[in-house]
Amino acid sequence: MKKINFLLWLMCLPLSLMAQGKKSFTLDDLMPGGSTYSQMQPQSLYTEWWGDRCVETTLDACHEIDADNGKKKTLFTLEQLNQWLEAPAGSPLVRSCYYVSFPDAQKPLVAVTISDRKQAGSPHTRTYAVIDFKKGEKVYAQTYPADAAALDRATATNNLAFVREQNLYVIKGENGKTVAVSKDGSNDLVYGQAVHRNEFGIVKGTFWSPDGQLLAFYRMDQSMVPDYPQVDITTRIATTYSCKYPMAGEKTHKVTVGVFNPVTEQTVWLQAGDPTDRYFTNITWSPDSRKIYMIELNRDQNHAELACYDAATGKKEGVFYEETHPKYVEPQHGLLFLPWDSSKFIYQSQRDGYNHLYLFDLNAPQDGNEQQAAGGGTYIEKVKVGQLTSGKWVVKDVLGFNVKDKSLFICSNERHPLQANIYKVELGNGKRKPMDNGEGVHYASLSKEGKFLIDTYSSPTVVRRVDITSTHKGKSRNLLDAEDPWKDYAVPEITCGSIKAADGTTDLYYRMVKPVDFDATKKYPTVIYVYGGPHAHNVDASRNYLTRGWEIYMAQKGYLLFILDNRGSEHRGLAFENVTFRHLGVEEMKDQMEGVKFLKSLPYVDAGRIGVHGWSFGGFMTTNLMLTYPDVFKVGVAGGPVIDWQYYEAMYGERYMDTPQANPEGYKGSNLRLKAGNLKGKLQVIIGYNDPVCVPQHSLSFMRACIDAGTQPDFFVYPGDEHNMMGTDRVHLHERITQYFEDYLK
Amino acid sequence: MKKINFLLWLMCLPLSLMAQGKKSFTLDDLMPGGSTYSQMQPQSLYTEWWGDRCVETTLDACHEIDADNGKKKTLFTLEQLNQWLEAPAGSPLVRSCYYVSFPDAQKPLVAVTISDRKQAGSPHTRTYAVIDFKKGEKVYAQTYPADAAALDRATATNNLAFVREQNLYVIKGENGKTVAVSKDGSNDLVYGQAVHRNEFGIVKGTFWSPDGQLLAFYRMDQSMVPDYPQVDITTRIATTYSCKYPMAGEKTHKVTVGVFNPVTEQTVWLQAGDPTDRYFTNITWSPDSRKIYMIELNRDQNHAELACYDAATGKKEGVFYEETHPKYVEPQHGLLFLPWDSSKFIYQSQRDGYNHLYLFDLNAPQDGNEQQAAGGGTYIEKVKVGQLTSGKWVVKDVLGFNVKDKSLFICSNERHPLQANIYKVELGNGKRKPMDNGEGVHYASLSKEGKFLIDTYSSPTVVRRVDITSTHKGKSRNLLDAEDPWKDYAVPEITCGSIKAADGTTDLYYRMVKPVDFDATKKYPTVIYVYGGPHAHNVDASRNYLTRGWEIYMAQKGYLLFILDNRGSEHRGLAFENVTFRHLGVEEMKDQMEGVKFLKSLPYVDAGRIGVHGWSFGGFMTTNLMLTYPDVFKVGVAGGPVIDWQYYEAMYGERYMDTPQANPEGYKGSNLRLKAGNLKGKLQVIIGYNDPVCVPQHSLSFMRACIDAGTQPDFFVYPGDEHNMMGTDRVHLHERITQYFEDYLK
Repeated sequence: MKKINFLLWLMCLPLSLMAQGKKSFTLDDLMPGGSTYSQMQPQSLYTEWWGDRCVETTLDACHEIDADNGKKKTLFTLEQLNQWLEAPAGSPLVRSCYYVSFPDAQKPLVAVTISDRKQAGSPHTRTYAVIDFKKGEKVYAQTYPADAAALDRATATNNLAFVREQNLYVIKGENGKTVAVSKDGSNDLVYGQAVHRNEFGIVKGTFWSPDGQLLAFYRMDQSMVPDYPQVDITTRIATTYSCKYPMAGEKTHKVTVGVFNPVTEQTVWLQAGDPTDRYFTNITWSPDSRKIYMIELNRDQNHAELACYDAATGKKEGVFYEETHPKYVEPQHGLLFLPWDSSKFIYQSQRDGYNHLYLFDLNAPQDGNEQQAAGGGTYIEKVKVGQLTSGKWVVKDVLGFNVKDKSLFICSNERHPLQANIYKVELGNGKRKPMDNGEGVHYASLSKEGKFLIDTYSSPTVVRRVDITSTHKGKSRNLLDAEDPWKDYAVPEITCGSIKAADGTTDLYYRMVKPVDFDATKKYPTVIYVYGGPHAHNVDASRNYLTRGWEIYMAQKGYLLFILDNRGSEHRGLAFENVTFRHLGVEEMKDQMEGVKFLKSLPYVDAGRIGVHGWSFGGFMTTNLMLTYPDVFKVGVAGGPVIDWQYYEAMYGERYMDTPQANPEGYKGSNLRLKAGNLKGKLQVIIGYNDPVCVPQHSLSFMRACIDAGTQPDFFVYPGDEHNMMGTDRVHLHERITQYFEDYLK
Repeated sequence: MKKINFLLWLMCLPLSLMAQGKKSFTLDDLMPGGSTYSQMQPQSLYTEWWGDRCVETTLDACHEIDADNGKKKTLFTLEQLNQWLEAPAGSPLVRSCYYVSFPDAQKPLVAVTISDRKQAGSPHTRTYAVIDFKKGEKVYAQTYPADAAALDRATATNNLAFVREQNLYVIKGENGKTVAVSKDGSNDLVYGQAVHRNEFGIVKGTFWSPDGQLLAFYRMDQSMVPDYPQVDITTRIATTYSCKYPMAGEKTHKVTVGVFNPVTEQTVWLQAGDPTDRYFTNITWSPDSRKIYMIELNRDQNHAELACYDAATGKKEGVFYEETHPKYVEPQHGLLFLPWDSSKFIYQSQRDGYNHLYLFDLNAPQDGNEQQAAGGGTYIEKVKVGQLTSGKWVVKDVLGFNVKDKSLFICSNERHPLQANIYKVELGNGKRKPMDNGEGVHYASLSKEGKFLIDTYSSPTVVRRVDITSTHKGKSRNLLDAEDPWKDYAVPEITCGSIKAADGTTDLYYRMVKPVDFDATKKYPTVIYVYGGPHAHNVDASRNYLTRGWEIYMAQKGYLLFILDNRGSEHRGLAFENVTFRHLGVEEMKDQMEGVKFLKSLPYVDAGRIGVHGWSFGGFMTTNLMLTYPDVFKVGVAGGPVIDWQYYEAMYGERYMDTPQANPEGYKGSNLRLKAGNLKGKLQVIIGYNDPVCVPQHSLSFMRACIDAGTQPDFFVYPGDEHNMMGTDRVHLHERITQYFEDYLK
């Protein structure tokens, strides 16, 4: 294992550049949505796997990359594709090769999606077409409505599932016949879509069996959930539209799982019992397409059960595993069956305090007594389970298997909490072998059989590199070493370090972005950017330590930026995260105040000019900090903030706060309306007027509370925008945020 | 006639006070809703008429005032009232004598309203009780539900009409029996309420016949009018509530008029024809309770007809009078029959260019050809009509009659456009006799038979005086000469003057409030306060020239305030008002820019620091000025602004703008979204989040337009508030407005 003294470069290699003679950034250069943003980004390499072969996809051609020597061989061009599709001259059916795929690991097949050209305006249909690029001919075509959503194709059969107006349909791969799986879909009853507000790792609502013959799908009855009244101001007279929103402690939707057979056109329902106040997550098919596994949670989210159902009858076959925790459990990953042994699967759990991998053996049933887990939790194993990885670090991602050497590839922060590195794990003994250079933050894509990895990474000293790695030999070849697009610009000095959390022992990592032309004898206005909530981090060992463009812009304007990942944020283990349970904001703010203490110790930080900005949970933190420490923070900008957790949705909110009925003190303590009278500095609250995540009731009720308390926050809305501003609105927003600090902090 | 050189005091008697040693105002002192506001107001005298006798109502007693010598005689005390009502000791049923009335001109009767005491919280019923204060006993009582709205009592019969949940009811005076006039009332179908959005002088929806036997009432079918989606954020999960809003050019409600007979319990409907796109206004009963008159307008509002109906059958008897105008006609006053001759009535019209009185004689029918009226208008008289008043001034109010000398009392601005004075008009020859001191602004209340006037007035040199005047002798006796409650305060210098309008000939009046401690050698930041729309004025000859408290506050902070009534505002005649027709904002802004030209000519005005503030139409003006003259106005605060007249309601909006279909250029020219890119200075838009008048779609669509155009307005909302902020919210609002100018204009 190549040893890297991480802390050496962490502390000693500040990304410093002298500003003299360098160019300045515009906000358009730095913000996604800005007119010049893309040309200021490092070069990328786009690839697709064709089995174990790596294909570079470009605008006008696809090239196979030889992993041994990096040489590229053109498979076909865009022009050829259009010829083979018999596109009329001058009117191509396919406009780039970026979005092609290779559906068969062996055969020379490429799949593209084309829109009909019958009419002006929006297309009416799209067609999935498969072309043999050796023969140069179309071998398969399937047409579906252009407004079909949630498309899900079974590779084995080309059966295609999709949703249209809340109903689920299947087009049969063999004959193109469309079958309606449901007919009573409505805003109250939705089919085939992600449920439970995408919590618990849920990202979709249809699940084809491995053989492509059966379709498991979600059905969600939300008739009992009120609509949050969202207003569309773009109609002649403003109108409302449906936006179901199950608030904390209120009634939530009921989810059931069906299994549709396109041959019989019949649906069987999994017999999971009364769905009231239950969450059905991480649906996984058995490799033989005969069983369905689900992880089932109670409303309190402190008890998870891994249940198994017969796909043909819907009958429940039993529970193989259970986990409890006095705070919460949070299964987010489905079962991953070993390709060479369908009786074994990988399961992810935080039961020892960190997210790790466990190998379950269905062929080894056992009685399973209750065992003690970290933090007062318990578990029951009804089959034999072996822990595959362990340590005070977390598995961040599982990439897949190499069938040949019976190994698994993972991404973890084993080397350093701020890093992400790729490892090969031997299934037999759990031994790990590094698959990358051991630096920075890596994202990898594994080829179909696990022979190669495309390893994309950056670090504080590497802008972006892409390597192809042979997983067997562990040998890498560089495919791209992107030039720094900012090399002619006055980039501020960016450093990273750690301080102790308010508990006195935990290391917290921060990033500091110093003003351009920094002069340590001066005193600078300082802005803390904060998120602070679960499932996110702001500081890591990637390019510029993950600095956001706005921070560069602010540094250019003469501000010092400080970003600290407090306890409660991700990738640091269960206790680090769940210390915030039932009193969101309290521990997080304590840690941020340790950051302030550190800042105040620096001679170049002007303690009288400290500002704070954050969005969503960060908006909650910003508002809370402004109201809790009114003498510390002079200016704040809070975007889309949570103001009162009772207005947040049940799935996310109750995990961390329980219900308002069960935890009245916790809700009271984190209700920022009750602190509205404390406001002393300048606070601007900004929301998307149509925010369906942190609904406007948060900010509006806060404005009301401030008015009643006689304080004067500022407020702005982006009509038509949701929880985040995108495109040019994002540039406008950050111009606005910047101006507020310019007006009141400078 | 006592001659007053109005312009002399207008120009030469600025209300100047040296600030040294004087107290400063707080915003609470100056704003309605402020905690100390009421104690900073001049003393008032509260009176009620008992026939021709004047009764002073106070907290704890009622005193008759002798008009000859001003002496007061106590009629009864609050304590007595409660004794006579048999209120339990220590638990009074009546809590003050302010709200009593004297229902009979001769008999010693006083009427009070008392709430039930059966339960804690809101009362369930109220009782109208009449007490003989000579005998000391209750002589009549009538109980009705506490949630009854739109109460309307027939004096002659004590029949009481009221509305509850959109249905109309009558309680019979003789036996207390409640009869439902309607049963199908709903949000779509409302009974007994003011219709047509209170335009055309409509303030109520029930009209008792003079004999108290029949009830005319409005019925409004608004099922075809969409709801503007108003959101209530105070419910557990935000909800919407019904708010019918007929926008310009869109479908409007249909109004019909019924006549209910409480004896037969039957309703007869006036046969007025298809109510689509028509307005039924100014319902008036004939003195014999047999006929009903209405003034009927077409949707285009350029044609008014005075129609008469038989109350017993609903049959239309004919049209007695018609008026047209190429721009619009706007009848706002019902018919006023002469008490001594039920064949004659007074009608108000602007047909000669100014609002004047006409005497109609129903006994003198005539053919009635079309005659030419001012500004290209026409009229047709089917009965003999004589013009009673005329001149380049307007009748502002008609107070009533003196039966004995067959005279009428009016309030007009004959003396000066800024004044309001009381005159007696002889019905026989139209001769006018002044009834007041000829100064300032008078409001008067006439006794039942017209023997006395209570004349309340102020002027730039008079804080508040109340006189009682014998209308026969014309002799006045002073009852109150209020002390200046601001005498110990540093009141800024307030002056009034005139400039020429942009047409070069019309006089426009302004008020200037100079900074406290004004020094003519300095240059001051200057704020223009503007309304500018029809039916309002900002400058007159009352106390402090009508200065608003906020202006005093701003002057105290070192600003110069300037307020100019542009063309389009009220009391200056038809042409002065309707010059804005079909292009609202254009002429108004030209005039305001004449004001700016004048300001720039003053050495002490800092031309680089000019701001503007206004609400409603004034918010439209403010936004328009900021966008049209971005190099003139540095800072603006626009409250509840109209942004696009297509979002305003049909009755008011189409009068001045026609429909969007008929006047697309006019709507385009006044659509402020199309100017959003011009914004250069700082503009804060503030709205009531639940504004049902200028619905939030105006300001929200403007924010969207600014975001799209890349400009940066500021925005604030008052959740739960409607078109105007009241109470403590009003204080909060003005603190906010002040701070904005402090931040950006100072």
